[in-house]
Amino acid sequence: MNLLILGGDTRNLTLANYLKTAGYKLELLGLDQKADDDFTDTTLIESIKKADYIIGPIPFSTDGHTLHMPLSKITIKLKDLTNILSGNKVLIGGKIPIDIADILTEKGITVIDYLDRNEMSILNSIPTAEGAIQIALEELPITLHGANALVFGYGKCGKTLSQKLYALGCKTYVCARKSSDYALCEANYLYSYNYKNIDFVIGHMDVIFNTVPAKILNSTRLAKLKPDCLVIDLSSMPGGCDFEFAAQKNIKIIHALSLPGKVAPKTAGNILFKVIEHIIEERS
Amino acid sequence: MNLLILGGDTRNLTLANYLKTAGYKLELLGLDQKADDDFTDTTLIESIKKADYIIGPIPFSTDGHTLHMPLSKITIKLKDLTNILSGNKVLIGGKIPIDIADILTEKGITVIDYLDRNEMSILNSIPTAEGAIQIALEELPITLHGANALVFGYGKCGKTLSQKLYALGCKTYVCARKSSDYALCEANYLYSYNYKNIDFVIGHMDVIFNTVPAKILNSTRLAKLKPDCLVIDLSSMPGGCDFEFAAQKNIKIIHALSLPGKVAPKTAGNILFKVIEHIIEERS
Amino acid sequence: MNLLILGGDTRNLTLANYLKTAGYKLELLGLDQKADDDFTDTTLIESIKKADYIIGPIPFSTDGHTLHMPLSKITIKLKDLTNILSGNKVLIGGKIPIDIADILTEKGITVIDYLDRNEMSILNSIPTAEGAIQIALEELPITLHGANALVFGYGKCGKTLSQKLYALGCKTYVCARKSSDYALCEANYLYSYNYKNIDFVIGHMDVIFNTVPAKILNSTRLAKLKPDCLVIDLSSMPGGCDFEFAAQKNIKIIHALSLPGKVAPKTAGNILFKVIEHIIEERS
Amino acid sequence: MNLLILGGDTRNLTLANYLKTAGYKLELLGLDQKADDDFTDTTLIESIKKADYIIGPIPFSTDGHTLHMPLSKITIKLKDLTNILSGNKVLIGGKIPIDIADILTEKGITVIDYLDRNEMSILNSIPTAEGAIQIALEELPITLHGANALVFGYGKCGKTLSQKLYALGCKTYVCARKSSDYALCEANYLYSYNYKNIDFVIGHMDVIFNTVPAKILNSTRLAKLKPDCLVIDLSSMPGGCDFEFAAQKNIKIIHALSLPGKVAPKTAGNILFKVIEHIIEERS
Repeated sequence: MNLLILGGDTRNLTLANYLKTAGYKLELLGLDQKADDDFTDTTLIESIKKADYIIGPIPFSTDGHTLHMPLSKITIKLKDLTNILSGNKVLIGGKIPIDIADILTEKGITVIDYLDRNEMSILNSIPTAEGAIQIALEELPITLHGANALVFGYGKCGKTLSQKLYALGCKTYVCARKSSDYALCEANYLYSYNYKNIDFVIGHMDVIFNTVPAKILNSTRLAKLKPDCLVIDLSSMPGGCDFEFAAQKNIKIIHALSLPGKVAPKTAGNILFKVIEHIIEERS
Repeated sequence: MNLLILGGDTRNLTLANYLKTAGYKLELLGLDQKADDDFTDTTLIESIKKADYIIGPIPFSTDGHTLHMPLSKITIKLKDLTNILSGNKVLIGGKIPIDIADILTEKGITVIDYLDRNEMSILNSIPTAEGAIQIALEELPITLHGANALVFGYGKCGKTLSQKLYALGCKTYVCARKSSDYALCEANYLYSYNYKNIDFVIGHMDVIFNTVPAKILNSTRLAKLKPDCLVIDLSSMPGGCDFEFAAQKNIKIIHALSLPGKVAPKTAGNILFKVIEHIIEERS
Repeated sequence: MNLLILGGDTRNLTLANYLKTAGYKLELLGLDQKADDDFTDTTLIESIKKADYIIGPIPFSTDGHTLHMPLSKITIKLKDLTNILSGNKVLIGGKIPIDIADILTEKGITVIDYLDRNEMSILNSIPTAEGAIQIALEELPITLHGANALVFGYGKCGKTLSQKLYALGCKTYVCARKSSDYALCEANYLYSYNYKNIDFVIGHMDVIFNTVPAKILNSTRLAKLKPDCLVIDLSSMPGGCDFEFAAQKNIKIIHALSLPGKVAPKTAGNILFKVIEHIIEERS
Repeated sequence: MNLLILGGDTRNLTLANYLKTAGYKLELLGLDQKADDDFTDTTLIESIKKADYIIGPIPFSTDGHTLHMPLSKITIKLKDLTNILSGNKVLIGGKIPIDIADILTEKGITVIDYLDRNEMSILNSIPTAEGAIQIALEELPITLHGANALVFGYGKCGKTLSQKLYALGCKTYVCARKSSDYALCEANYLYSYNYKNIDFVIGHMDVIFNTVPAKILNSTRLAKLKPDCLVIDLSSMPGGCDFEFAAQKNIKIIHALSLPGKVAPKTAGNILFKVIEHIIEERS
């Protein structure tokens, strides 16, 4: 079985290391400026021909037209790539544009998007949680031990984060919507509140983490925070806070994005490795 | 708002206590042999007329024809009950027969089955886990601290149980099927295996818990256990073990069912209370 | 190096198994009724002559005159033993009478009492804690998860027990005397109280564990317990409760002694093994 | 009861806030440059005369002659202070020079050094552990979750740190000297090694924390580390590492001192408050 890693950032380099160590046969393209000098269209065609699995970047493309290859001088158009690809191959990548995925699927290629793999977001929740905790440790003038911490949202990220906060000795509160989440919080020793009742206790918090991609920390809620309460927003752009109001009122909000690659790049690559291994295992 | 608790076992008595303490207006029927002497058909009709919520038993019926009322002398036919019920009422119970639920829904009654509430099975996983741990503590000649424990299944019950085993210092292994479960196990500090690989390590286990309702511990697997390995089967009848083979080979299996009501009857009633409270809250 | 295990209960048999498995050269005396038939005074003298380490029972003697040998028909007088023993040997046992220890030490024998080894009581605190938890699980009509649990004393046993209660989700309170213990409780996420203030909260407890060998739960304190509060007294005879008052007032107290040997006999033997290994290691 | 806070750094200001909030009658001297303008010798004499408790700085003096007052323009000689102090007073401070303490004790003053209070170092181990974890999170390219972490020393700081590392999902190893420490490690779910055997596994570590004030990480040990292993030295000056050798071999060592005041200044002040409260409680 042959693997081709095509483009991507340093996570794909780390991934390559893990795959090599595990004994996989492996080619790399578009990850090394020096190697790029020898690059021709034929190289690409030949490499793809040999490969059973083509592992692309996350995100697959940033402009919608070319493959995301920040470590390389060369450019590969998505259109060219779809033309070259054929046969009984597997293409893996993150946020693969739907039109590209559709064309490839029609040609018989198996297209697997990392973002459709639940395990990926669960595993990424671990470095995300550690990154969020690192920020809290850096910013707070008190210990997390004994602090009141509130987590908005009890999805994958909220679960891992709140569990780690509890483990560090925070009095950990979760704000969630579903009755099954309150039950899970109870099973996991966490205090849980719904979105109405949380407003009664939000004023006691020392640190608040938001994992929900919606305007959760609006001006009404922000106005209730005690002075010095730190807000760490983990939700994707544009975030879940009224940043303007916060700036006016001198409330410190840190909008922390893409933490896994930033705080634990090696682990981020290892997570890709684990997912790739599972994909290969499931297909054998 | 008026509540009527109708039939059921001691859990409904405990439930009644919690509801009273919380200030609910409440009537009980079919839970007291003495009170039964004054019972007439009119009592039932009047009580139901007044009630906004009618809280029945778990299971709703054991014979398919009459309401489950083990603490009472009287008998109420499901047919009669459906005839009496009408208007803007809510009926709550466990395992309500589908035909009864259909008739009532048609009449405009809101029918809510405990078993459709995820929170119910999550909350019940707590006393179930404690009951399973109690059995292991009673049976094993070694401490759980440092023991190798394997949990088959990572659903609601498997999650809570494996977390508590880990908390007590077991080297805790989980056997599951989904890649997302392996990721969750990693996030929760548990070793995870699939159903193929588990057979390589099953021989090292000191105690095995099964939560999967399927023939998981067949003779092939049982034959691999080390002498003195204890098996605790938590899966519903007929269980997930080859009990005959186990008996032949002197493997100790304990098939433990309905643990919440047995090991923590008061908590079991409190769980009903929490679910009822959530139902009322959601509807207000 | 030769070891002789001399008398004792089943823990010494388990110990023998662990020592054999670890490759030690080993003789047993006074642990098997059948083998006793061949026993003569010369057997004893010869065995002792060969042995570098003589591992006796816990307790060493129950009557002050003879060695504790409940599994054997024969009787060995302590006086005879001290006469036979000589040279560069090590004698290990539990609660060795001081006069015997003095005589042996004078003769150049190294006498080591298990009870002087801190590690012994720390390791025994693990099965003790599990045994105490087992009793609580068996007796309480509620789950430990969410229960209010109070531990009197924060010595070795109190530390391990309270940590495990916390791990199982108890709201765990500790009553202690030293300011450093309050600090340790804080580091370990436990609520701590002194002996004055505990009386303000004792009435909220669902279960109380006593590890202090003093009349801690006197009638005044017992009178403050809420009905159904369970008391588990782990302190050595005569225990730390006013048992008469408790009987009058229908307060359930379980006086649980020597838990390691009862709830985890194999682990109890393994603990002896670990201690013996450390003793040998320290002397080599 | 009157309290006087005399000199010290920002921790004494935080301490003052906590004491005020708790309702204590309180005077401050030598903590505010503005207030210093009104300062005369009489101020000092009057303030001390009124005070029952005089709370000085940590450390009490940095030069052996004057009180440590980094926030003030004024200077108070230790000699003058001892002359003024008299009567039934309590003086509290950190690292009070022995000769000063002796003179004061002779005069009937009760002298209490923070550093003689075990609770102080236990409580300080919490922010120290969080600070050490913060550094590890900042420096490591992998998550602590799943990392191999080794802690040298199992004193107050080693205990709290290793427990928190375990809670975050590190495979946590402890290197200690006493058999009772191995037993405690077992009770706390930690792997323990002695100073001989640790050298067999030290090469697998991702991060090493030293809490022992001795040359623990000498060149022999450092040479065994795997590339990228991070060393965090928490031991007081001059530290426990061969820093020169490490620099030569490109081994990253961070010597982190006085973490509580740096990473959690407010908690550091709160710890002083707790200790003061206990001192007052014990004396009443």
